[in-house]
Formats: sequence, structure tokens, C-alpha cells
Amino acid sequence: MPKGSLASPSHWKAFASRRRDPATKREAVLQTAAQLFLEKSFGRTSLKDVADRLNITKPALYHYFRNKEQILLGCYRLGAGMIEEILNEIAAQCGTGLEKVDAFIYSYANVMTINFGRCVMRLDEGDLSSDALAEVRTYKRKIDRRLRVFIQEGIADGSIAPCDAKIAAFAIAGAVNWICQWYEPEGSLSAEQIASEFARTLTRGLARVRKPGRVTAASPAHKE
Amino acid sequence: MPKGSLASPSHWKAFASRRRDPATKREAVLQTAAQLFLEKSFGRTSLKDVADRLNITKPALYHYFRNKEQILLGCYRLGAGMIEEILNEIAAQCGTGLEKVDAFIYSYANVMTINFGRCVMRLDEGDLSSDALAEVRTYKRKIDRRLRVFIQEGIADGSIAPCDAKIAAFAIAGAVNWICQWYEPEGSLSAEQIASEFARTLTRGLARVRKPGRVTAASPAHKE
Repeated sequence: MPKGSLASPSHWKAFASRRRDPATKREAVLQTAAQLFLEKSFGRTSLKDVADRLNITKPALYHYFRNKEQILLGCYRLGAGMIEEILNEIAAQCGTGLEKVDAFIYSYANVMTINFGRCVMRLDEGDLSSDALAEVRTYKRKIDRRLRVFIQEGIADGSIAPCDAKIAAFAIAGAVNWICQWYEPEGSLSAEQIASEFARTLTRGLARVRKPGRVTAASPAHKE
Repeated sequence: MPKGSLASPSHWKAFASRRRDPATKREAVLQTAAQLFLEKSFGRTSLKDVADRLNITKPALYHYFRNKEQILLGCYRLGAGMIEEILNEIAAQCGTGLEKVDAFIYSYANVMTINFGRCVMRLDEGDLSSDALAEVRTYKRKIDRRLRVFIQEGIADGSIAPCDAKIAAFAIAGAVNWICQWYEPEGSLSAEQIASEFARTLTRGLARVRKPGRVTAASPAHKE
């Protein structure tokens, strides 16, 4: 079993040894819970399910998280942290707005194929308490604003055709977020294929642009 | 109150008169339930909530639907029916593949702004029984296949640049499906604005295509 793999279905080994540090155990809880949320939905997963799969008792689980929502928020924070790191890296890079959008889609699509990304984006916000909802919405808003700024930069530097940056950002984020609904780790499409093709399709568009007298296919913006 | 409006929050009037036909009452149940699923999530909505809002008893509700999942499936069938009708109309039209994709996005985006579309797309599949899941997946697959065929037609007729039609269809469907996650009927963006801009952004792409010596913005494929 690939220990530490983000998609690994069983993380009980982290609890099998007394020597593991609390952070490792905490992450093992999140990995296991994310897997269960994907298998059974957040609503149908109980703390007992999580404890059982980790081969620990429910009271031992309470040592790390006080309820199921806190576990979900833990997953969310991990996923959001990964995305934020990516966004900081992209923002610090030189390049056109279009290149930044391209890099954003490629990296974000990759996060959407790992369990944290998948389970947090599949979540029904109606299942959250108002505090948790506020936190989750803050993450979403942050990501959305950064993407919007990249698009606006692209419009300003001429790499992106004039458009409504707000709606365009929603369209891109939606396409990428939706990956969590159909992606299967065992399926025929690899994360790399999806990320590359999404970056290409969404930045360059579907439409073939006709120049008078000849036909030119859009060239890929993303380097593979 | 706009009677019969898809977004109307209260449909108890359908039950206030003895003369209303069963189909009207059945639809009133679905409208009310869709509204509640959006407000509280599917998991947190009880049959009692639905009955209370309709001002009827729970046994009266059982006359129309035998459980909550059947109500959800009823919503799903209505939403899927609308989309299927649109797809048949588009398929019957003349036009390039790109024009069909454009029409699909525009119409589908509109469905995603009404309550049936919103509540069914926000659903966590893990909340469904295996029979219901099979039915829901059949709808999704059907829609996805039709969109894929439009894209393939576009590649064949030269209106769409060569791409992986399967992944492109997922990207488009995802962007449109995700509308249910952020659209607010009272928000600043109208359904018409969203549908038009999505059709434009997703079919023509973000990238400005530079012709040697001058810069040309992509012209909108969708007629407003």
C-alpha cells in the first residue's frame, strides 16, 4: 500500500505505532475521512466510520477533532492551502495574464483529482454550520478573486480578449471544480491528461479562428 | 406571488383548493421541495418540512411521493426533461457543430439558474440509493454524449479546432453545472447575462488570437 499517498484508502498504520507524531495522526484522520466522504457522502459518514477504518476508538478520534464538521474543515483547509500556495507561486511569476490563467487551470485541475479537492468541492454547503460556511466561502472568494485578477491582467496586457472577467472566472473555476464530480482515479483519463487538456481548452477556447483564405487551429498555450 | 413561477418560494396554494388536479399538486410538491433542498440541503430537509410549507399533512404528501428520494428524483426528471427537450431542438437545427455547442451552453445555463437545475446539480451522489443513482447517472451520461457529438460534429465541419471531445465536453458541462453553486436569483448577474457570456467565453475561448500586424478581439458566436 503506498503509505502517505493522497488516494490511499487506509491510513490506520499511522495509529498502529505509538511513536508517530500527532500531526501525522491528524493527517491520517483527514485522509481517511476524505476517502469516506467520497465513498458515502459527508451526510452518511459517521465519526464511528472514521474511527473504525483507522482501527481506533471514537474517544481517541475526539482527541484530534471535536466533531465531523471540524474534520471536513480540516480537509478544506488542506485543500485550500495547496491551492493558495499554487496561486502565490503563479502570481510571483512573470508572464502574461493568459499564461497565469493557464498555469492556474493546470495546477488547480491537479488538486481536483486528489481526495481533498474532490471531497471539499462535492460538499453541499447546506450541510455546514454558519461559522464553517463563512470560512469555506472565504476560501472560495479568495481563489475566485485571484483568478479574476489574472484574467484582468490578461485583458490589460492584450493576451486575453475583452470579456466579463467575473463571469469568465466563474466559468473556468466551475469547469475545474466539476472535475470532482466525474473524475475516477481508476478511470481512463489521467490527472495529467485532464489538467493539460483543460488548460488548453479553457484558455484557447474551442473555436477555430478562421483567417481569410486559410484555416488555422489554435495552438496550445500550455507546455507539456 | 408569481403563481407557477419556477422560483416561487411558496406553492401551498395548489393544495388550498380542492379543485386543483393531481398533476398541479404534484408539481407544487416538487417546487417546494426544490426550494427547501436549496435552502437547507437535501440531507437536512425532512418530509415534514415539505408538508409544513405546503400546509398539508405528511400522509397527504405520501399520496404523491413515497419518500424524499422519490421527490428528488421527481425534480431530477423535470430538470432532465427540460434539458432533453433543448437538446432535441438543437440537434434538429441546421448549423455547425460550434453553433450547436453555443446553443447548448446558452440554454443549459438558463436551466441551471432555475431551482430544479440548481438543486439537482448540487446533490451529493453519495446521498442516493443505488437505483436512484443509476437513473441520475443515465441522465448525466445522455447529456454528456449529446454535447460530445456536437463537439465532434464541429471538429468534422471545421468550426471547432481539433481537441479531445470527451474532456472538452466535461469542461463545458462542468462550467455550466457549477452555476448552481454560485448563482443567486437576487444577485447582480441575470440569468440572461450569465447564459450569453458563458456561451461566448466557452465557445470562443479566452485567448485573443493575434493576426500578424494587428490585434482582433474574438467576435461573439451567440446572438443576443
